Amino acid sequence: MTGVTISGVGITPFESDAERSALELATAASEDALDDAACSLEAVDSVHVGNVLTEALDVQGGLANAFVSAVGLEGVRADRIENTSASGASATHRGVEAVASGASDVAVVVGVEKMSDADTSTVTDAISKLTHGREYVQGITLPSFGGLAAGAYLDRYDAPREALAEVAVKNHENAVDNDIAQFQKEVSVEDALDSPVVADPLRLYDCCPMTDGAAAVVLERESDAEGVHVRSIGSATGTHAVAERPDPIEIESVSRASERTFADANLSRNDVDVACIHDAFTVLELLELEEIGFFERGTAWEATMRGETARDGAFPVNPGGGLKARGHPLGATGLSQVVELVWQLRGDLRGDRQVAGAETGFAVNVAGFGNNSVCTLLEAP
Amino acid sequence: MTGVTISGVGITPFESDAERSALELATAASEDALDDAACSLEAVDSVHVGNVLTEALDVQGGLANAFVSAVGLEGVRADRIENTSASGASATHRGVEAVASGASDVAVVVGVEKMSDADTSTVTDAISKLTHGREYVQGITLPSFGGLAAGAYLDRYDAPREALAEVAVKNHENAVDNDIAQFQKEVSVEDALDSPVVADPLRLYDCCPMTDGAAAVVLERESDAEGVHVRSIGSATGTHAVAERPDPIEIESVSRASERTFADANLSRNDVDVACIHDAFTVLELLELEEIGFFERGTAWEATMRGETARDGAFPVNPGGGLKARGHPLGATGLSQVVELVWQLRGDLRGDRQVAGAETGFAVNVAGFGNNSVCTLLEAP
Repeated sequence: MTGVTISGVGITPFESDAERSALELATAASEDALDDAACSLEAVDSVHVGNVLTEALDVQGGLANAFVSAVGLEGVRADRIENTSASGASATHRGVEAVASGASDVAVVVGVEKMSDADTSTVTDAISKLTHGREYVQGITLPSFGGLAAGAYLDRYDAPREALAEVAVKNHENAVDNDIAQFQKEVSVEDALDSPVVADPLRLYDCCPMTDGAAAVVLERESDAEGVHVRSIGSATGTHAVAERPDPIEIESVSRASERTFADANLSRNDVDVACIHDAFTVLELLELEEIGFFERGTAWEATMRGETARDGAFPVNPGGGLKARGHPLGATGLSQVVELVWQLRGDLRGDRQVAGAETGFAVNVAGFGNNSVCTLLEAP
Repeated sequence: MTGVTISGVGITPFESDAERSALELATAASEDALDDAACSLEAVDSVHVGNVLTEALDVQGGLANAFVSAVGLEGVRADRIENTSASGASATHRGVEAVASGASDVAVVVGVEKMSDADTSTVTDAISKLTHGREYVQGITLPSFGGLAAGAYLDRYDAPREALAEVAVKNHENAVDNDIAQFQKEVSVEDALDSPVVADPLRLYDCCPMTDGAAAVVLERESDAEGVHVRSIGSATGTHAVAERPDPIEIESVSRASERTFADANLSRNDVDVACIHDAFTVLELLELEEIGFFERGTAWEATMRGETARDGAFPVNPGGGLKARGHPLGATGLSQVVELVWQLRGDLRGDRQVAGAETGFAVNVAGFGNNSVCTLLEAP
């Protein structure tokens, strides 16, 4: 109902890219999106950049302005949107609003992160500081929250540890034929269960990697261009301190944001054919699927083990590999979900990589540990 | 023509605030703005946070989400907008668009910076990195650009060095009776001319200080609330590298943004009664006044020396002291300009502090050295 269409998409390989800077990655993805949209630079009038870490990693301030110059778009309106790991979807939200409101005719939204610009401890320290100060000083980081939630989930629903491993196995399998994915390799349940402990019960293969990459979309009014329709996009915040939540494995920002998004589109969960879920940790895929209402509480793990969320299952989830295997370049992730859905809804993909008959796609991009969630509903051209 | 009204404003003292964190400053300003608007927390549905340095100074990531929880607004949509020193105006722009588009009924926009969280060299280093990489590595920082532009301006228009000093003298005089200003003291032309050289010909009193502070506005639809009308708001980027500009003392982003803003409001420069100009360096006040068209090129210095831009002059500029004397907490500055204009347009101020008969106000907030400019046109209730 927004009247906004995605006329083009672009994405770089998600990997550890020693060669290209954040600016170069963002430029490459945007140029690909403009090519895909058959849109000239001259037509663009707004730029929305999603990015998290440039200042923390001490590389480039004013990234939106640097990007506009790098890509040759001086003159347009531009700014940077930061919403931690949901910066990409928030930037998309702002771009959609710019076009829907008539403020912009053609918007370029680009999300980018260059996580290999600094050593791992610098990056993890910066990411850890998005948690609440009272929790951060106690050493509780995002993996800690993930581990606590995973333990609580398995315990409450009497689920086996293999249920989490199956999420990783599925997402790795989906990434094997995704050319831009960071890990184009399968892992077995045994690999996952034997990998090193990160935050018990989460192990290495339950956690997304550090990734460099950029993804971009071109947005235009439906009356002006062909493309995948943005049915709605909605967001909501939650409590900042996880300890303040009534139930540690409920993520209210996800339920609120998804309710707003379905209501705004006048669609129901049953209308969705394919979903991209923010699986920064395997347990989050299960929690979010239930929080959104795609599965009843306590049942997503069984559905996963039955193969329902596989690419050829009844409800394909993360067909491009998710954050787990495609990779998680923070500011680019929300855009990479949209790019994956656009490919699926346009029927661009070949063989098993294509979800058959996908007409309606859903994505959720989550900031911090459920601090802020952004949902997007897209419809085939 | 936006249909958006500013129903309340709030601001903290601008100073070096050792006591309060960025979150506490933002909360204080927002609560004051909601009180001023007689608006409850329950009515708010979007939050737009302007901030630059939290990650660079390694204090708090995900500031928008932390703020929403600190102020008791969990559930609303929220994100952070970063556009270097114009982050405050860009956040206002996004808030206005959220309300104008119908996406939000009541928006809180808050800009905040806590520059005393780190030592001066860390802060100046972070700020210096907003310039183009090719210029930064040569040691060209924002004050360097200011000094080069000041020298070129004085030379081209055969203006005396006192012309720059007069800008500082005027802005300091305007701050004397501004309770929230960082420097509530007069300086003389001699003081300014005798102060230490920062980047020749600019001296200490030609440069804005480091400041802690926050400012906030509440935005609602004109049909729902009384307040100062947002006639229009517009922005534009320029080249990132200053060396790529055809003329080093022309700032194309300012002329583009102001043209868009006046055209959108269907108003002319002559309609403006009072202006807040981004005087990070004294020379910028002159350059921007000419770039916007308030004065012919090469004439703003004479107008300043004749007293035309004084608070009781024909065209009052920076009646609250400007960045020079009110202070420049980066992410809060654009909001502080709007707060000052709202006070002037509502006739809230007493005695000489009030610009007599101000009906239409204009502000320009500039990112980097003219990398991105945001203009706002406001009209009395």
